[in-house]
Amino acid sequence: VQSKLPHVGTTIFTVIGQLAAKHQAINLSQGAPNFPCSADLVRYAHEAMQAGHNQYAPMSGLPALREAIAAKVETLYGQRYDVDDEVTVMASASEALFSAITALVHAGDEVIVFEPAFDSYIPMIELQGATPVVIKLAAPEFAIPWDEVAARVTPRTRMILLNTPHNPTGTVLSAADVARLEALTDGTDIVILSDEVYEHVVFDGQLHHSMSRHPRLAARSVVVTSFGKTFHVTGWRVGYCLAPRALMDEIRKVHQFAMFAADTPMQYALARLMAEPAHYLGLSGFYQHKRDLLSQALAESPLKLIPSQGSFFMLASFGHLTDDSDSDFVQRLIVEHGVATIPVSAFYRDGTDQRVIRLSFAKDDATLLAGAERLCRIG
Amino acid sequence: VQSKLPHVGTTIFTVIGQLAAKHQAINLSQGAPNFPCSADLVRYAHEAMQAGHNQYAPMSGLPALREAIAAKVETLYGQRYDVDDEVTVMASASEALFSAITALVHAGDEVIVFEPAFDSYIPMIELQGATPVVIKLAAPEFAIPWDEVAARVTPRTRMILLNTPHNPTGTVLSAADVARLEALTDGTDIVILSDEVYEHVVFDGQLHHSMSRHPRLAARSVVVTSFGKTFHVTGWRVGYCLAPRALMDEIRKVHQFAMFAADTPMQYALARLMAEPAHYLGLSGFYQHKRDLLSQALAESPLKLIPSQGSFFMLASFGHLTDDSDSDFVQRLIVEHGVATIPVSAFYRDGTDQRVIRLSFAKDDATLLAGAERLCRIG
Ligand SMILES: CSCCC(=O)C(=O)O
Ligand SMILES: CSCCC(=O)C(=O)O
Repeated sequence: VQSKLPHVGTTIFTVIGQLAAKHQAINLSQGAPNFPCSADLVRYAHEAMQAGHNQYAPMSGLPALREAIAAKVETLYGQRYDVDDEVTVMASASEALFSAITALVHAGDEVIVFEPAFDSYIPMIELQGATPVVIKLAAPEFAIPWDEVAARVTPRTRMILLNTPHNPTGTVLSAADVARLEALTDGTDIVILSDEVYEHVVFDGQLHHSMSRHPRLAARSVVVTSFGKTFHVTGWRVGYCLAPRALMDEIRKVHQFAMFAADTPMQYALARLMAEPAHYLGLSGFYQHKRDLLSQALAESPLKLIPSQGSFFMLASFGHLTDDSDSDFVQRLIVEHGVATIPVSAFYRDGTDQRVIRLSFAKDDATLLAGAERLCRIG
Repeated sequence: VQSKLPHVGTTIFTVIGQLAAKHQAINLSQGAPNFPCSADLVRYAHEAMQAGHNQYAPMSGLPALREAIAAKVETLYGQRYDVDDEVTVMASASEALFSAITALVHAGDEVIVFEPAFDSYIPMIELQGATPVVIKLAAPEFAIPWDEVAARVTPRTRMILLNTPHNPTGTVLSAADVARLEALTDGTDIVILSDEVYEHVVFDGQLHHSMSRHPRLAARSVVVTSFGKTFHVTGWRVGYCLAPRALMDEIRKVHQFAMFAADTPMQYALARLMAEPAHYLGLSGFYQHKRDLLSQALAESPLKLIPSQGSFFMLASFGHLTDDSDSDFVQRLIVEHGVATIPVSAFYRDGTDQRVIRLSFAKDDATLLAGAERLCRIG
């Protein structure tokens, strides 16, 4: 069988997850909570199912959910999206990213993508016969080198793929980044695909620079986000995207055939929970507590922590401790110390190894403390 | 915005659904039940959510569900699929078809597809830069013209896309079809993509010729099916596919990035319901009753019914009544008579109009009778 994705193997999250299970390691690897979602949310889903809401939802999503999304976005970011034509409920943020790239990126196009990158980005671009133009961010700052970006824009640049807050580095886009991005894209037809699944997890009072906060960028952007990350239900497979109508029309054509519609009872439940903004307005504080708890508990560990400004993740470097590759180090942490993390080299296509690991703090406090205790003893 | 799918508009199911709602028509259009699913299934989903099964499922699906699928397939069709490598839970049959076509069909390939065709097939092929080789089936038999198929196979034929039981015609593949298919594909590397979402809805004691029933075909087939159609939950977005490992490895690469995983609590619930085979073994009888009820209630109508052997659908021709196009006729049925159906021309890319409409009998008996009563008065 001739492969369209010859270089793709099993995703790192599956590999580490299986190794962690085998060694019963404390799992600080995947960005999935190990604590429950709101009991109300479960009840809402149950009530929707009992009320018989178990058949196809509209292709673009339940109207009540699209309205709740548009209202939230307008309140938080000031941008008014048309509920019928510019908001689409997707069967996960993954599906939204995939549908957007499939619809908008043509063979021969170039797409600028930053590494470390979530592992689906580059294969999704390659599937279209397009060229990923990879720009590396370097530890410990992981700042976007805008001069390099400017130098690598060509007439074939179709899209810039952004992710803020950033997985795996925990960086967030700054106002200065936004200004550079505006200057770079004004007057072009470059589309910005902005993965904002951690939009509600931004620390220390910083602003989340959603593309929908900036009209010049919003006009060329597809903004993707996730209900799973926001409401502690990563297994429910509901996300959404926002885009100007001309882009959305194309994205919906792919969504319509790839997925048709997202889960119906879950959409009913999420529409009801969206009426209680405390659930997402309180999320930054909730996760900031976890970040701080883990950081403090790791104060005695020999790892060097890299500050996280958002997302479920923080990075730690260990190059001062050993010459191990990050993969070997992660393997050793699981097997010998019973703690699972993710090697950051997995987020670079060429395996660039800066001796950095990623820790997820989307875990209950006891798990964070237990994991940290083990990491304090690796010395 | 340059479109990859310039000819695609809003799907016919959305168009008719909206018109039906506007005119409060009795809706015999979409293949979605208007009656409840099993209360047990709702309870199982609720229990799974309460037990905290709300985070990412494994990419390939919950092991318990994959085992239940493999056991069912072996019992019914005699083919043993490897639970780990040859069975994948998908976020709907739509996603399974999309992932299979995306993974296996390359630019420049040819894919043989029969019309009338479900509306996603041809766009999914075109999205790959491949050529749909369209072979028409004609009313009222809609038999596959195997000599024409044989004549149109070329060295570039990569895939044959089948659908049995067939939407919209209600035909099923026969043993003779299977023999022709085997003769045609033996010794080639043609992949068969078999959409079998109505596998448990086959009438009059006929056999469902799943590709997994025929080892020579199974070895080159991707079999796709749906839990939504089988358990009356089309809005739950869970389906699965079966394929030999070499094909499945590629399909999973796309699935992993396009969707990552299907809904977790729904998978738990479906795994439990699969332990009660009566739910799917009784489905043919359940829908045969509905087919017969609708047929009998339409005995006095001026429509000419075309017998259905499977699926949720039957066809009816009206060319002896009027010179209207089928689209105009459907429009008139909705607006003037308050009954919604689907024009079969929507399933032909060139709009071939044989003056045939599709009726869905996936409705409660009262709806079927009320719809039929209105259709008896159109004379
Ligand atoms: C399907 S893995 C999704 C992202 C995530 O949870 C992670 O990066 O750990
Ligand atoms: C998304 S429409 C799915 C198929 C169906 O229900 C139909 O053909 O009516």
